[in-house]
Amino acid sequence: METFSNKLRKDVDPIWQRILFHPYLVEISNATLPIEKFMFYIKQDYSFLIQYARCLGIATAKVQDLETMRTFASLLNSSLTLEMRMLERLGLSLRISIEELKRAEPTPTNLAYNHYMLYVSYSGTVGEAMATMLPCMWSYQEIGERLDKSEKIKEHPIYSEWSSTYSSSEYIDLVKWYKTLVNELATQAGQAERKRMKSHFTISSKYEYMFWNMVYKQEQWPI
Amino acid sequence: METFSNKLRKDVDPIWQRILFHPYLVEISNATLPIEKFMFYIKQDYSFLIQYARCLGIATAKVQDLETMRTFASLLNSSLTLEMRMLERLGLSLRISIEELKRAEPTPTNLAYNHYMLYVSYSGTVGEAMATMLPCMWSYQEIGERLDKSEKIKEHPIYSEWSSTYSSSEYIDLVKWYKTLVNELATQAGQAERKRMKSHFTISSKYEYMFWNMVYKQEQWPI
Amino acid sequence: METFSNKLRKDVDPIWQRILFHPYLVEISNATLPIEKFMFYIKQDYSFLIQYARCLGIATAKVQDLETMRTFASLLNSSLTLEMRMLERLGLSLRISIEELKRAEPTPTNLAYNHYMLYVSYSGTVGEAMATMLPCMWSYQEIGERLDKSEKIKEHPIYSEWSSTYSSSEYIDLVKWYKTLVNELATQAGQAERKRMKSHFTISSKYEYMFWNMVYKQEQWPI
Amino acid sequence: METFSNKLRKDVDPIWQRILFHPYLVEISNATLPIEKFMFYIKQDYSFLIQYARCLGIATAKVQDLETMRTFASLLNSSLTLEMRMLERLGLSLRISIEELKRAEPTPTNLAYNHYMLYVSYSGTVGEAMATMLPCMWSYQEIGERLDKSEKIKEHPIYSEWSSTYSSSEYIDLVKWYKTLVNELATQAGQAERKRMKSHFTISSKYEYMFWNMVYKQEQWPI
Repeated sequence: METFSNKLRKDVDPIWQRILFHPYLVEISNATLPIEKFMFYIKQDYSFLIQYARCLGIATAKVQDLETMRTFASLLNSSLTLEMRMLERLGLSLRISIEELKRAEPTPTNLAYNHYMLYVSYSGTVGEAMATMLPCMWSYQEIGERLDKSEKIKEHPIYSEWSSTYSSSEYIDLVKWYKTLVNELATQAGQAERKRMKSHFTISSKYEYMFWNMVYKQEQWPI
Repeated sequence: METFSNKLRKDVDPIWQRILFHPYLVEISNATLPIEKFMFYIKQDYSFLIQYARCLGIATAKVQDLETMRTFASLLNSSLTLEMRMLERLGLSLRISIEELKRAEPTPTNLAYNHYMLYVSYSGTVGEAMATMLPCMWSYQEIGERLDKSEKIKEHPIYSEWSSTYSSSEYIDLVKWYKTLVNELATQAGQAERKRMKSHFTISSKYEYMFWNMVYKQEQWPI
Repeated sequence: METFSNKLRKDVDPIWQRILFHPYLVEISNATLPIEKFMFYIKQDYSFLIQYARCLGIATAKVQDLETMRTFASLLNSSLTLEMRMLERLGLSLRISIEELKRAEPTPTNLAYNHYMLYVSYSGTVGEAMATMLPCMWSYQEIGERLDKSEKIKEHPIYSEWSSTYSSSEYIDLVKWYKTLVNELATQAGQAERKRMKSHFTISSKYEYMFWNMVYKQEQWPI
Repeated sequence: METFSNKLRKDVDPIWQRILFHPYLVEISNATLPIEKFMFYIKQDYSFLIQYARCLGIATAKVQDLETMRTFASLLNSSLTLEMRMLERLGLSLRISIEELKRAEPTPTNLAYNHYMLYVSYSGTVGEAMATMLPCMWSYQEIGERLDKSEKIKEHPIYSEWSSTYSSSEYIDLVKWYKTLVNELATQAGQAERKRMKSHFTISSKYEYMFWNMVYKQEQWPI
């Protein structure tokens, strides 16, 4: 039988295809992306990860089972250290100081995406919070695996270090564990909650697309 | 001494000027706004007001003082009835059924704005929540008073009914009470909270501008 | 088929029997309860209702459907006005000023009960919040109907005014509506959520018993 | 100048004296506490720590500064692993399985205390949440240091392993860091928030006393 997460994935495939073949990622893959766009991305992603960590904090608080709490706490911990340290390292090699990363102001699209996630985390169930956070985690794995097949990206030390984070076996295992948990929560949930999980997954998928668009265009506030 | 809310208002004046003179509102004032744009607005605003009411519910839950709780509860009640019934009435006269209003899907800008507000309401103090909700309430009063001076709008029964809601003495009293409360909360707050209140007020002011822009352009999801 | 709420009610019947025949209520029914205990009760209940209203505020914010939001908002409004004004009136006739009611410090049992309810409202689903709030609302109806059969209570103007609030047809209709909504939410919920709803209902039933015990013994903080 | 936390500590000194000289702790110190009471304690504390971790999760989500988020996340992580593993180890040496620890039902006092903490974490500021959590963390340090001076406890491998956790230099450093942060938050806070922080600190101190009382008497639900 098809799992809940696989069904979600199938339904948003048209959106995910546009993510995987977004000019930003195609140019990363060919190592032709202007470095300014990547620098813009790093700052926005750093800001995003701080908010993502807040969502993980709330999810840790909301999950019923102790072992899952422990895994979430460890995930939260490594998100704030390992993943953000990687961005800090890449930033430093591009002469972006850690202070500059911390000060980065989120663009409208970034703010909209992370406040959607934060609000669902506060007001919704763990299943809803996790479904909202899943497209980010999962699509990065697909992106990482895709970029891993490119020869050209290997010539670019920065782009390849960034992308290899998301094709590592640890990362793949993490996404697998996370999807299993989403599947379990969907099984326990009633029809109405499952419908909301699906809706959150779709909206976050749209926001993922819009996020890549935003960094590619280096979006600014209209006012 | 200048009140906190007046200081906030002064700081965002350039944004508010662009709100007050936004083509959407200029055309409403001249009774030249295409009715489709107004219909688009009604649906988006109806959807927005539902989320606004959620914020009022949380504010009622968070406020310390019983009398303020009572006023918030009454405000919540009248927002869900009086204000929304007015939109329902206008909708019906434009052949938009109440069901259609309820089904209206928020645009990206609408979703971003109301999730910002909802998240602050859940995670922040009452002062922060109220500062986030203030630009909507207050700018509508300024808009209402401005439109009230136009002769042309009076020829348009729908636009004038809509605008007169926000220039009524009850509405003006409500905004006055609300600002007084924000001022009190700001006085009680520490420097850090006051700074966050100011930041929320500025962001919501930007979102107000973006909201008018959104309805004027009849924004769609990019994906 | 038996409704969810009726199943809940049956399962806690031993607890509810001890509520209905608690000495405090037996003595109210016989009009023999020392007035000091009733005065103690009024202060504790006033404090409790403020927190109960906070829970209703959050429930209004969390419920999906607009019409239910409207009913919750109206319930919140009347809880803060009608029900509390009744306590204020009774208090005044017993020379307890409104200020004294507002200042009343909750006892440990009161604090425990209302913080349980508040936490479930913030962290749980609407179904969970409503199941937690149901024993208070529903058991008062059974208490009201029971006391209504007593002849002796009618000789006591204060006790009979208090009890008649909860045997009025408006109150009975409200409880009926509320139970119908809990039943619907239970139908939509998954097994895990339904189990939590049942658990909250049981714990709140225990707290109801402990609340009567607390006022009867005029509980104080042990330190 | 006296720090905020030291002022708090002084104000509750009468309560803390009754904690430090509670029969439960005196008997632990003399190694005369019946082991059943300690076993009862371990189960209740295990249940409490799970809820305490939820509060840390929310605090991680609410704190503004990234470095503080990181420290909180690491604290949350080690609370769920190091501290709980210690209890699991002690439990196993007393033939209490981990499953038994996980199933332990909180007593009324335990439930009241942790729901107070959980509710403040959800609804209040970080300063309020931290002030609520401080008496637990800090009083355990004072208890640990006190027990460390006893010769008799050293003869009891279980009681001494338990108490030494809270007199370790790592633990002392942690409490110190935590108090510094509370002091900073109090400095940033306005008068009203500081008053609430003080009130939470006092109530949690009372609950700490009541917690020791509860395990000493092996409290049961009255119904």
